[in-house]
Amino acid sequence: MSKQYFGAIELGGTKTNVMVADADNHQLAKKVFPTLSPDETIADICNFFKSTISSEGIKLESIGIGSFGPVDLHPESKTFGYITSTPKPGWQFVNIKGNIESALNIQTRIDTDVNAAALGEYSCKSMNTIKNMVYITIGTGIGAGIIINGNLVHGLVHPEFGHIHLPHDKRIDPFPGICPYHRDCFEGLASGPALTERWRMPADEIPQDHVAWDLEGEYIAYAVSDLICTVSPEKIILGGGVMHRYYLYDIIRTKTVSIINRYIRSKYLEESIGDYITAPRLKSDSGLIGALCLAVHADKPE
Amino acid sequence: MSKQYFGAIELGGTKTNVMVADADNHQLAKKVFPTLSPDETIADICNFFKSTISSEGIKLESIGIGSFGPVDLHPESKTFGYITSTPKPGWQFVNIKGNIESALNIQTRIDTDVNAAALGEYSCKSMNTIKNMVYITIGTGIGAGIIINGNLVHGLVHPEFGHIHLPHDKRIDPFPGICPYHRDCFEGLASGPALTERWRMPADEIPQDHVAWDLEGEYIAYAVSDLICTVSPEKIILGGGVMHRYYLYDIIRTKTVSIINRYIRSKYLEESIGDYITAPRLKSDSGLIGALCLAVHADKPE
Repeated sequence: MSKQYFGAIELGGTKTNVMVADADNHQLAKKVFPTLSPDETIADICNFFKSTISSEGIKLESIGIGSFGPVDLHPESKTFGYITSTPKPGWQFVNIKGNIESALNIQTRIDTDVNAAALGEYSCKSMNTIKNMVYITIGTGIGAGIIINGNLVHGLVHPEFGHIHLPHDKRIDPFPGICPYHRDCFEGLASGPALTERWRMPADEIPQDHVAWDLEGEYIAYAVSDLICTVSPEKIILGGGVMHRYYLYDIIRTKTVSIINRYIRSKYLEESIGDYITAPRLKSDSGLIGALCLAVHADKPE
Repeated sequence: MSKQYFGAIELGGTKTNVMVADADNHQLAKKVFPTLSPDETIADICNFFKSTISSEGIKLESIGIGSFGPVDLHPESKTFGYITSTPKPGWQFVNIKGNIESALNIQTRIDTDVNAAALGEYSCKSMNTIKNMVYITIGTGIGAGIIINGNLVHGLVHPEFGHIHLPHDKRIDPFPGICPYHRDCFEGLASGPALTERWRMPADEIPQDHVAWDLEGEYIAYAVSDLICTVSPEKIILGGGVMHRYYLYDIIRTKTVSIINRYIRSKYLEESIGDYITAPRLKSDSGLIGALCLAVHADKPE
């Protein structure tokens, strides 16, 4: 049997990563380009796969897509595989799965970008004994991929964890929030663009000693604590652009332990918090490797 | 083969329900008594089962226990089957599972009271097509049993949903909250005792036209919205003493739809909200029938 190759797409709010690899992540080709209009970006994606197929003389078994959301993941729905009510201009109700399938004539499996990233991280060997895991991304948007008993959580739709509501003391932080749907939900208060707007400077130019980071760590710690009280994860991975500020991890760990206040007793919280709330093992590759996992399991029931 | 009988215990913060029934919930004996000290209550429980076994001339296969929490549910832990850091006086670190097993010399299976109630509701025929379901109890305490892909969520510990933090605008509601661990967490703001203390009258004497209920509905709606954004349930059941105020359901439905603000698009939220956020089918029997489900599956791995 000749070697099997798979395609992987990580469609992000600002950039898109694509890759061709075998099931063990031996990579044949990889590319990144900015996410523009749906037409331009779908064309960029399809051109990458067509040219790789032709230059390498291979065929692809399937393609996995991790996309920014919300994505309609109900196979019986008329808009299955569409990006739906996203705030991203031009991308509302784009049939991302269908367009790629018909342009390339290939089976695909789609999930949200954060679900893909959670799958990627969960495929690491160190996760062997873990049943419940959460991957939270904090960047242009905020979202979470949640794995319970070894499987991704879907359901009514899929988690939209960036849109939970947290304590927001307007006397301390009068910033009203920037979410067009909810104003001061988690994403509205703590995403990269929220940092930029609150502090009137680009988020990546805010200095390390600025009060911004203590407040940012507090919102993230409240969200992490809410997750611990809701799905009881054995591992919490924090990724995304905002978390490139590595000192946030310790702020979040300390505040989470303080918020939980020893009500939930666990060695994870008491002894090994540094390993419990942690950075992605795969660094910025979690989503793309997760999309590869989706491709490898493209024939599993949705 | 002679008929098989099982024991069920619902150990609540204020009262304890016990039952002997077959796997189809044909009941042989049932009793309720106040939850007193651990010694007294464990004696009451054991006396009920001993006298039923002797008067009916039967034997029990196993007993299911749904207990107020937190409960240590890790079989490998030294305190497996103990109630741990509960605020209930006298009940910290009581070995409820071990004490009942050794007194009655019988296999038991333990879970939290809300997990048992969630199991009970999930055993109803109407749940056939539902994979993700949440049961929230709002009474003396607040908690949630969460079923994902047909299974209860356990993990680090188990959900302690009453202790999530919600938006709390102290300018509108200056009440500081009553949770001894977290002050103004969900339970600290919205449990029965919180209502009693905030409004300086017993919760069950607060009149229907009092502003209390709009605020109460708002906190519950924020919690429900957070759950929808986190685990994407296809059914949300609200039970417990506070929910005996039936008009709360409509307040919560309206506010939840308003908080989500059409960001998550689903017919459940748009057309059938009355069936989506709903009262327990089994009324006050959810927990006891769920404990029976635990007993019937007592030999499943924890």
